[in-house]
Amino acid sequence: MSALSEGLTQIVIPLASLVGIGFALLQWFLVSRVKLSSQDSSNGYKQKLIESDEEEEGINNLEISIKCTEIQHAISVGATSFLFTEYKYLGIFMCVFGAIIFLFLGSVKGFSTKSEPCTYSQGNTCKPALANAIFSTIAFLLGALTSVLSGYLGMKIATYANARTTLEARKGVGKAFITAFRSGAVMGFLLAANGLLVLYVSINLFKLYYGDDWEGLYESITGYGLGGSSMALFGRVGGGIYTKAADVGADLVGKVERNIPEDDPRNPAVIADNVGDNVGDIAGMGSDLFGSYAESSCAALFVASISSFGISHEFTAMSYPLLISSMGIVVCLITTLFATDLFEIKKVSDIEPSLKRQLLISTVLMTAGIAVVSFFALPSEFTLFNFGTEKEVKNWHLFFCVAIGLWAGLIIGYTTEYYTSNAYSPVQDVADACRTGAATNVIFGLALGYKSVIIPIFAIAIAIYVSFSLAAMYGIAVAALGMLSTIATGLAIDAYGPISDNAGGIAEMAGMSHKIRERTDALDAAGNTTAAIGKGFAIGSAALVSLALFGAYVSRAGIKTVDVLTPKAFIGLIVGAMLPYWFSAMTMKSVGSAALKMVEEVRRQFNTIPGLMEGRVKPDYANCVKISTDASLREMIPPGALVMLTPLIVGTLFGVETLAGVLAGALVSGVQVAISASNTGGAWDNAKKYIEAGVSEHAKSLGPKGSECHKAAVIGDTIGDPLKDTSGPSLNILIKLMAVESLVFAPFFAAHGGFLFKFI
Amino acid sequence: MSALSEGLTQIVIPLASLVGIGFALLQWFLVSRVKLSSQDSSNGYKQKLIESDEEEEGINNLEISIKCTEIQHAISVGATSFLFTEYKYLGIFMCVFGAIIFLFLGSVKGFSTKSEPCTYSQGNTCKPALANAIFSTIAFLLGALTSVLSGYLGMKIATYANARTTLEARKGVGKAFITAFRSGAVMGFLLAANGLLVLYVSINLFKLYYGDDWEGLYESITGYGLGGSSMALFGRVGGGIYTKAADVGADLVGKVERNIPEDDPRNPAVIADNVGDNVGDIAGMGSDLFGSYAESSCAALFVASISSFGISHEFTAMSYPLLISSMGIVVCLITTLFATDLFEIKKVSDIEPSLKRQLLISTVLMTAGIAVVSFFALPSEFTLFNFGTEKEVKNWHLFFCVAIGLWAGLIIGYTTEYYTSNAYSPVQDVADACRTGAATNVIFGLALGYKSVIIPIFAIAIAIYVSFSLAAMYGIAVAALGMLSTIATGLAIDAYGPISDNAGGIAEMAGMSHKIRERTDALDAAGNTTAAIGKGFAIGSAALVSLALFGAYVSRAGIKTVDVLTPKAFIGLIVGAMLPYWFSAMTMKSVGSAALKMVEEVRRQFNTIPGLMEGRVKPDYANCVKISTDASLREMIPPGALVMLTPLIVGTLFGVETLAGVLAGALVSGVQVAISASNTGGAWDNAKKYIEAGVSEHAKSLGPKGSECHKAAVIGDTIGDPLKDTSGPSLNILIKLMAVESLVFAPFFAAHGGFLFKFI
Repeated sequence: MSALSEGLTQIVIPLASLVGIGFALLQWFLVSRVKLSSQDSSNGYKQKLIESDEEEEGINNLEISIKCTEIQHAISVGATSFLFTEYKYLGIFMCVFGAIIFLFLGSVKGFSTKSEPCTYSQGNTCKPALANAIFSTIAFLLGALTSVLSGYLGMKIATYANARTTLEARKGVGKAFITAFRSGAVMGFLLAANGLLVLYVSINLFKLYYGDDWEGLYESITGYGLGGSSMALFGRVGGGIYTKAADVGADLVGKVERNIPEDDPRNPAVIADNVGDNVGDIAGMGSDLFGSYAESSCAALFVASISSFGISHEFTAMSYPLLISSMGIVVCLITTLFATDLFEIKKVSDIEPSLKRQLLISTVLMTAGIAVVSFFALPSEFTLFNFGTEKEVKNWHLFFCVAIGLWAGLIIGYTTEYYTSNAYSPVQDVADACRTGAATNVIFGLALGYKSVIIPIFAIAIAIYVSFSLAAMYGIAVAALGMLSTIATGLAIDAYGPISDNAGGIAEMAGMSHKIRERTDALDAAGNTTAAIGKGFAIGSAALVSLALFGAYVSRAGIKTVDVLTPKAFIGLIVGAMLPYWFSAMTMKSVGSAALKMVEEVRRQFNTIPGLMEGRVKPDYANCVKISTDASLREMIPPGALVMLTPLIVGTLFGVETLAGVLAGALVSGVQVAISASNTGGAWDNAKKYIEAGVSEHAKSLGPKGSECHKAAVIGDTIGDPLKDTSGPSLNILIKLMAVESLVFAPFFAAHGGFLFKFI
Repeated sequence: MSALSEGLTQIVIPLASLVGIGFALLQWFLVSRVKLSSQDSSNGYKQKLIESDEEEEGINNLEISIKCTEIQHAISVGATSFLFTEYKYLGIFMCVFGAIIFLFLGSVKGFSTKSEPCTYSQGNTCKPALANAIFSTIAFLLGALTSVLSGYLGMKIATYANARTTLEARKGVGKAFITAFRSGAVMGFLLAANGLLVLYVSINLFKLYYGDDWEGLYESITGYGLGGSSMALFGRVGGGIYTKAADVGADLVGKVERNIPEDDPRNPAVIADNVGDNVGDIAGMGSDLFGSYAESSCAALFVASISSFGISHEFTAMSYPLLISSMGIVVCLITTLFATDLFEIKKVSDIEPSLKRQLLISTVLMTAGIAVVSFFALPSEFTLFNFGTEKEVKNWHLFFCVAIGLWAGLIIGYTTEYYTSNAYSPVQDVADACRTGAATNVIFGLALGYKSVIIPIFAIAIAIYVSFSLAAMYGIAVAALGMLSTIATGLAIDAYGPISDNAGGIAEMAGMSHKIRERTDALDAAGNTTAAIGKGFAIGSAALVSLALFGAYVSRAGIKTVDVLTPKAFIGLIVGAMLPYWFSAMTMKSVGSAALKMVEEVRRQFNTIPGLMEGRVKPDYANCVKISTDASLREMIPPGALVMLTPLIVGTLFGVETLAGVLAGALVSGVQVAISASNTGGAWDNAKKYIEAGVSEHAKSLGPKGSECHKAAVIGDTIGDPLKDTSGPSLNILIKLMAVESLVFAPFFAAHGGFLFKFI
């Protein structure tokens, strides 16, 4: 038996969630003390300013403060209106897909209301398949709503924080950093705590009906993961197209043709660009990581429910995944204090090390945390389900599973940093290749992206091997959870990037001095790296999560082996490996077409609005916002349909074995495409920033802005935009979502699938 | 029993080979009638010239003819010297690797000379493992030598034909086309016939020792495929780096910086560039397709030898793969006549349809040919080995297997044409994206490449499913052979491309008129498409071949299932899927670095040699040739080592299951990367040509040469170079080679592999 009693478990989990939410609110309060359009220059802070030149320009400038507020308002309105329009579409999707889930799962036993013998817990009676259909649908809707809420809250916080970061940048880079980082933390903690709380409450509510039928309970809970991930897909794809259409469009006309700086207020697409950062990088990322978290928890819970924990009704051991997440919130809380209170950022070069330190601290503390949870929450020995056989496992085995996932995440994060930060040679080599033009820049950038998959794949492979060997599929699921256990910190440093990016944009638009812009640029460059790290985490965890879901799907579909030597599985494998390419082709083409439309509109405005170039007249920002909104909502449908329909079509027509092949193929191929796309894009962006910043002799020899090298770097950066912010990060949702969808629909496929092969 | 007697089979196969060789010599003779530096303007042709303006400029110009001869000589010398230097390295590699094969395979039974009971043919005695080691090594060396010979002959023919094509272009596009195409046919027939003959002779010689032990005989023959493919790897990688370093280097300085036309004689890298076409696209492609052909034959023979054909010693049925290839030579011979004698090319727009017709005619004729061979060579019913079980198969089943491979090849070819020819909307859209600069060009090009994998993958998947279902792994092997059965025609239209490219280069360098250059450009544009088609075939067949080899490996290693649900296989799968990225990163970086060196040298020459820009002084061509040679020989080692060592390391340390995973992963992932890379590159190249040619209103609006659009298109073209000519086409060798190497070493891995896991 577990050392931790069931009663205590029932207290610890909601308590940790509430602590997380409380901490998020505290951070929000601290950020809110930076007042917008106020005449009180000290903003309530009485401490000494970090940098020596205390009397910065513009601190007392009311006009600038008002301008910032205006711009922030415009961004916030644009982002909110986009998300609400998107949610309208998603609402329709949720209803339709909810109905599909209900009908498919209900039809497994012909909508019968009779109880049946359980599949795994032999001798007992389980609830009817119809109940499973109903509760899966409810769980799906709950997951979808939580995901939407996560994205929405993230966006709200980010648009709240961006102008405040700009204003703080007047006081120094340290202040600006803390504001941006705190805002990221609000999002991180809110998401992590909220996801845990909703899941916990749902389980307890579902239990009122299911009672002792844990098999059915946790089977239907998997709908929660499906709901979370399907919203994340549209969030990522829609948001990604939005942000990159605006970004690419703004850059192509503004920077390349008109030779005006980035984020110049004369550029009609500039508001759309800044809105994009919030709806794509923030709301999309929030939904994405929430989805991963929900799915890995569900996968672990499902496997546990058909293992000894579930069959002998050990609630504490069953709740091990939730307890790990609870511990994660506490660990991240402590970690955050290191960044905001224990260390100070005094200069630009402190930023990246500070963020890297966050990763390391959270990983080290969490390792101890996992040990504690594994010791107290688990019996010393138990058995786990392993594709029809049982596996003997000890509690310290699970400690290793979670810990290896966690550390693999750190390795992926650090590798990503190495390949995308301009402090190291890979990005500097790419920047150097700009000497001979855009072509060599692109060739070196692509090569860098390809190369950057090597270490992460080995890290993932080792994590898989160890956790699989120790605790079968459950091991993989908790390894994924381990990688995501520090999600609050991960999200904080990730959200920090787009907030800084926005802050820079606001500084430029508000006409603040070059010095302020330099500070926000430094924050932003670190933000590009952290964004890449965040994507690395998202992808790495997605790989583990998908594998865990894949294992759960296979268990639930009743397949004993997925043998690539059978034609059914092999064609699934090769077609599955193709899907990431198909998906990327769609999303990249979408960004390209939307960007072309944006370019035409921006050109039109420059050509037809007199006085625009001179700054006498404001451009029509709203029209550009509308173009991005329309394009992204229209263009997100085909890739979304590809992902959502593939499992349904393959499962129904070709059966469970081919679908298993498709999942495995999409997983192993998608991970590579996703990592290389994200890192290539991140490297190009930072190669450009490296040339612009001109910190070293080498960088100076390539610059300054406007030089031939810099122009070549801008081309690389523009190509990287859809790779790193649209297709790359959407791919990890593709692999997770197809897996969780297969898992939810597995009973249907097992009963009625393989239509086509039956006919032949 | 087969309708065709053993005696007749022994006559038909060598006869077909000799017919093929004879036909190749005839074509060579016809090409040789175009005289270089001769004063006889009619060149022995008495027919009327195709185009109306009979008195073309320059036909009687002795000076131009002499210049062409000189340039041709320089290219030929450069190519020959590169290949000989390369062969020196390869000679060392062959000796070392031959020794490895002998030692590894010999050690399986501790170098014992005792005969043993057979594995499959129960009750009989087979030759000792040591014999297998010796004969595998001999087969390896034979395959390697044949591959080298194939590449060398191809190069010789191509450098012989290039200047002749240029001279014929003075008389009209039709004449030039026929010369280039005939030269391609020389190479195609020589390779196909030669490969078949050497294999046939080897089998008969090995039989003198092996006698009735067909299991051992065909097991050791697989070394032939390994030899062929390992040479192809170095040929492709080395040649690919050579050609693209020169090409990119020449373009970056010449076209972009100095604004001089392509192939301008003032450009120091121009000879190296033209040499590159011959050593990369011709010699590399020749070795590659020879390798595929050898491997698919070996895989089919090996599976047959452990099936009823082998066990009951039916020589004719056993020789089914060789008979298919024999029929292929005859069919291709007839097909060639359609291009050279039955139809005439009268205008530029006839070229592509004529080449497409070649594919269609050969496919239709070959379908009938397969039916004939299947009916006469096979018993009406027989059993095939299927991973430890037997499968009942009828002769018309095998007809369908071969035919579906053949037709899948046609579909892949046509799809490739659609995505890479500038006659269709995909390339035109990419060209259109150049309006907004290089970045959108690249984004659209990458999206095109990703999209272009969809149909080929479905075609391959269907071919696999059908052939696997009908005749297990043997079905896959003969499907691959079906796709390659028209290899002579495939190679002819493929080799035609680089020959035309060279012809254009020679015309430019010899200072011939714009009109001549236009004609060779038109040939070359069609050549880009056919090159892409050739790569499509190479990749498609490689996928099938690898799968067949994979099946053979699994059979030989004694594995019953490759279950992705086991950690050993899954980590193999994900790491295998990563290998194509690692490999591509290496090759692209190599091209990039070598190109940078070339750029520096070309710039140095322009800056330091007075009078070079004015054309008064000749540049130092030899130095550029040397840079390309050194770079390619040095840079081909790491990617080569990655491919050659991976199976050895994985098999030895992690065992046969993990290696099976690696092979499957590399296969399903590599195919996608290879297809998308080749097609993206081909599309960019032709988008540039589309703008340059300015045939339609749309194209004119983007051009002319030197416009902003054109500059953006040139950047895309340059990025595409290493993708389409180095990393893309090398990847199909990666997947084949790892599979055939695993097959050859399978007895060793099965006996002693999995070192590391045994310790843990």
